[in-house]
Amino acid sequence: MNNTVLLISCPDTKGITASVANFIYQNNGNIEHADQHIDSQSDTFFMRIEWSLKDFKIEKDKIAESFKPLADRFKMRWALHFTDKVMRMAIFVSKYEHCLYDLLLRFKGGQLNCELPLIISNHSLAKETADSFGIRFVKFPIIKENKLQQEKREIALLKQEKIDLIVLARYTQILTKQFVEEFPEQIINIHHSFLPAFVGRQPYKQAYKKGVKIIGATSHYLIEKLDAGPIIEQDTIRISHRDSIDDLIRKGQDLEKAVLGRAVRWHLDRKILVYNNKTVIFD
Amino acid sequence: MNNTVLLISCPDTKGITASVANFIYQNNGNIEHADQHIDSQSDTFFMRIEWSLKDFKIEKDKIAESFKPLADRFKMRWALHFTDKVMRMAIFVSKYEHCLYDLLLRFKGGQLNCELPLIISNHSLAKETADSFGIRFVKFPIIKENKLQQEKREIALLKQEKIDLIVLARYTQILTKQFVEEFPEQIINIHHSFLPAFVGRQPYKQAYKKGVKIIGATSHYLIEKLDAGPIIEQDTIRISHRDSIDDLIRKGQDLEKAVLGRAVRWHLDRKILVYNNKTVIFD
Amino acid sequence: MNNTVLLISCPDTKGITASVANFIYQNNGNIEHADQHIDSQSDTFFMRIEWSLKDFKIEKDKIAESFKPLADRFKMRWALHFTDKVMRMAIFVSKYEHCLYDLLLRFKGGQLNCELPLIISNHSLAKETADSFGIRFVKFPIIKENKLQQEKREIALLKQEKIDLIVLARYTQILTKQFVEEFPEQIINIHHSFLPAFVGRQPYKQAYKKGVKIIGATSHYLIEKLDAGPIIEQDTIRISHRDSIDDLIRKGQDLEKAVLGRAVRWHLDRKILVYNNKTVIFD
Amino acid sequence: MNNTVLLISCPDTKGITASVANFIYQNNGNIEHADQHIDSQSDTFFMRIEWSLKDFKIEKDKIAESFKPLADRFKMRWALHFTDKVMRMAIFVSKYEHCLYDLLLRFKGGQLNCELPLIISNHSLAKETADSFGIRFVKFPIIKENKLQQEKREIALLKQEKIDLIVLARYTQILTKQFVEEFPEQIINIHHSFLPAFVGRQPYKQAYKKGVKIIGATSHYLIEKLDAGPIIEQDTIRISHRDSIDDLIRKGQDLEKAVLGRAVRWHLDRKILVYNNKTVIFD
Repeated sequence: MNNTVLLISCPDTKGITASVANFIYQNNGNIEHADQHIDSQSDTFFMRIEWSLKDFKIEKDKIAESFKPLADRFKMRWALHFTDKVMRMAIFVSKYEHCLYDLLLRFKGGQLNCELPLIISNHSLAKETADSFGIRFVKFPIIKENKLQQEKREIALLKQEKIDLIVLARYTQILTKQFVEEFPEQIINIHHSFLPAFVGRQPYKQAYKKGVKIIGATSHYLIEKLDAGPIIEQDTIRISHRDSIDDLIRKGQDLEKAVLGRAVRWHLDRKILVYNNKTVIFD
Repeated sequence: MNNTVLLISCPDTKGITASVANFIYQNNGNIEHADQHIDSQSDTFFMRIEWSLKDFKIEKDKIAESFKPLADRFKMRWALHFTDKVMRMAIFVSKYEHCLYDLLLRFKGGQLNCELPLIISNHSLAKETADSFGIRFVKFPIIKENKLQQEKREIALLKQEKIDLIVLARYTQILTKQFVEEFPEQIINIHHSFLPAFVGRQPYKQAYKKGVKIIGATSHYLIEKLDAGPIIEQDTIRISHRDSIDDLIRKGQDLEKAVLGRAVRWHLDRKILVYNNKTVIFD
Repeated sequence: MNNTVLLISCPDTKGITASVANFIYQNNGNIEHADQHIDSQSDTFFMRIEWSLKDFKIEKDKIAESFKPLADRFKMRWALHFTDKVMRMAIFVSKYEHCLYDLLLRFKGGQLNCELPLIISNHSLAKETADSFGIRFVKFPIIKENKLQQEKREIALLKQEKIDLIVLARYTQILTKQFVEEFPEQIINIHHSFLPAFVGRQPYKQAYKKGVKIIGATSHYLIEKLDAGPIIEQDTIRISHRDSIDDLIRKGQDLEKAVLGRAVRWHLDRKILVYNNKTVIFD
Repeated sequence: MNNTVLLISCPDTKGITASVANFIYQNNGNIEHADQHIDSQSDTFFMRIEWSLKDFKIEKDKIAESFKPLADRFKMRWALHFTDKVMRMAIFVSKYEHCLYDLLLRFKGGQLNCELPLIISNHSLAKETADSFGIRFVKFPIIKENKLQQEKREIALLKQEKIDLIVLARYTQILTKQFVEEFPEQIINIHHSFLPAFVGRQPYKQAYKKGVKIIGATSHYLIEKLDAGPIIEQDTIRISHRDSIDDLIRKGQDLEKAVLGRAVRWHLDRKILVYNNKTVIFD
């Protein structure tokens, strides 16, 4: 598969779809997927369009240049991706390994279109798992005093490894502003509650105490403010008074895996557009 | 709101999206919704595109004529609708009134974009409800011997009332071939099971006997073969060994209402395309 | 059906089940339902047990007296109910009638085991609906200045009508402390969000703004603190970026109806025990 | 934890609960869980009761003997289990490893209260996975001609390993009558459809062709008749016309894992009673 994916957002006006579709058609491209959305509150146009490069008249490295005048005309924010250029993903993990394992198995099973060269942890526990999948494991122990310094070393390693996507698979350290700003819309977190309910620590305990009848999990892009970034995916499961906190944890972990798996997959397939701290998912 | 909705299906090839979008753009139309789908198994292209008639250069009654050459070029099956021309819906009901009531309330609440001039039944029970909503009620008692004759009278009445959509809201009579063929893709039924499981009579009893842990409801277009038409919408709900058949009926009725309500709404908003005895839902 | 329902909560210890079951058996009662739960965090025992009064040796009005020594021995909080003595329910409503209608139809369909003598509103809108179901409608217009006075009149009417359960079916006035304290665990509210997310006004608008991927509804007993009472039931439904606030409202209303309907039914069937601002549901 | 679990089914009559609870109480047992159910169609009583052996007056190996007269009096089918005596589970797998992996991780994470000494396959693929978890792997290649013979060898090995529970984790061979009868209510299968829909081969392909809007997975006890045994657990997930067969497989596999995981857990915790080819789940 050798396709181009174009992601667009711009003020809505007449002629955007026609102009983009013409650009592709006149250069002999075959559209394989196209999806658009108009946010009527803000009059914003969003589009994801994917076409085959087979017989496309413009060379790959000239497409951006050719498309730019059209993009400028409509004041687009846009990004051009090629499906044969997969992202490089790093996974951060602490002590709970269920999300790590789930991502590794989805990766191994071909569900995640990426390279996976690196697992980072503040603990040693996940090393064995990383080893068994043949993936490099680097430990950065973190205490209050060394946090900024360790983060700098992590950033350097991530840059060196050309990492495009960082997945926090139940990573318990709160990343600082310096780290988050280095990777805008490139860090996906899983929070084990139905956000915005139960922000912060021990959401299952909070849920148990509150007596909710349904629990959830939320995957979102990390921003500096805790558990407040654009939500990518959520899911919920029914609980009852019979469920202990341990039952909530067990049921919730299945949700976490499913929700994070879908979010990562959509990101890797370039199916997400962020605006207004929200997401458009072209699934 | 004064929009045009164009529904298209045709063999997939290059240039369809560009040509359709150009047709609208060059005539000064503003696209409000566009959704397309390519079925890669059959290489079929599907599209629903909706644009505003405000400032559109072609007069309403000339649009079809103007579009025809383009449609012919791509061998399209196509239909053109105008949102200010709402459908006329008739509801068929027997003894259970929950779906009838639900549709009436959705209609009254503005959720269903249609006229609702007629309720038909083989019993008298629903007359009071029809009266309280000020809708004409006509009873056609049906026994084996008069069925074909009564159906002919029903068809005549439906034609006379210019009915576009017939909703079987738990109507217990099986319609004959002559009736079904008179209204292709214009009859929506609700079946109280998760089809293809539990076809036919007493699906809740069948489900209870089988010991399933989840029950469902299915809305589909009627075809001659029983409970086998293109599925529009389904939903499920969890049950347990504690639930009696009466509990299944009670829980299931809530499903039936929700599922039928969504199916009817999508049909009225021209969001459904049928192919291969399946549906594409542009929701 | 002429059954006794006994609801118990007490400190957990040996012999409770045996003692209660013996009490029933030795007096020739036939247990039809029994469910118990032990909260291991607080070592509290909960039980709902229902037995037939047919051939029961103790007369109905002597059962409480006979049971009291046993209850005292185990330091029980307990309540004795008879299924032939149904509750009297009043519905409060403001402008949105979907929950009112849903309750009326469930009542009419025999799903709600109660009398329904009274509908109260701060507006006139629902009068027609109340009339069409033959139920007394009383309007208490409320402004800041007359609120306490009007509530007093409402309380007097509710007492006079011997109301056991008040259902706030999208009633928009916040009830004051004086009102709430008059009916402890006797007022059921429906809040149109997945509590504790989106407390207070316009939860659908809050949800839309936040960009959540799932919305919910919550039914709870009213306490003085806003939207903070013991949760009885919740449910959720998936939404997407395509859904406008109006779509959220439409989808959410279906949830509200289902969730409130289940909560009211459980309450009427004496299936709910409240403790620690949470609920045990013996469904 | 050192508890006794007693599972009972018998004709419903007065005094069962009292008698069982008395038996435990008079011997100084502390009931930790008790759940009962009366099937009103067949007038059958079901009970699961679990009590602590701490300070229980009857020695463990005498409990059955002591309980027998009571059981006989009520014509019970009954079974007595001890939570410190965990089952020994064997997993059968063919080429798809997702369910195997999921069970191994739940086992490793302490969710499955059992020993897991054996993995059997008709292929070699899963050997590496078995090895990495340190579990014995035995391959029994099966062709039409050697099936009965190989099954006999499998049965011998399973007996020798004292296996209590066989889990078919996407095992593609159909087991013969001789095998199934050797392990009544001891073989749990996962079928990748919402049974009774899509029995037999390639259910995802069948679902795709039918155009259903929701797919499911079903875990059940194996009986001789294909995909017809008592259903233990089911779950469903929404799909759309956009989903290819591969998408159905991917989404469905997540369901399969969750459904099989719950079924196996309930079985190991002695929470399932089978009757009339259905199950009572005391969750």
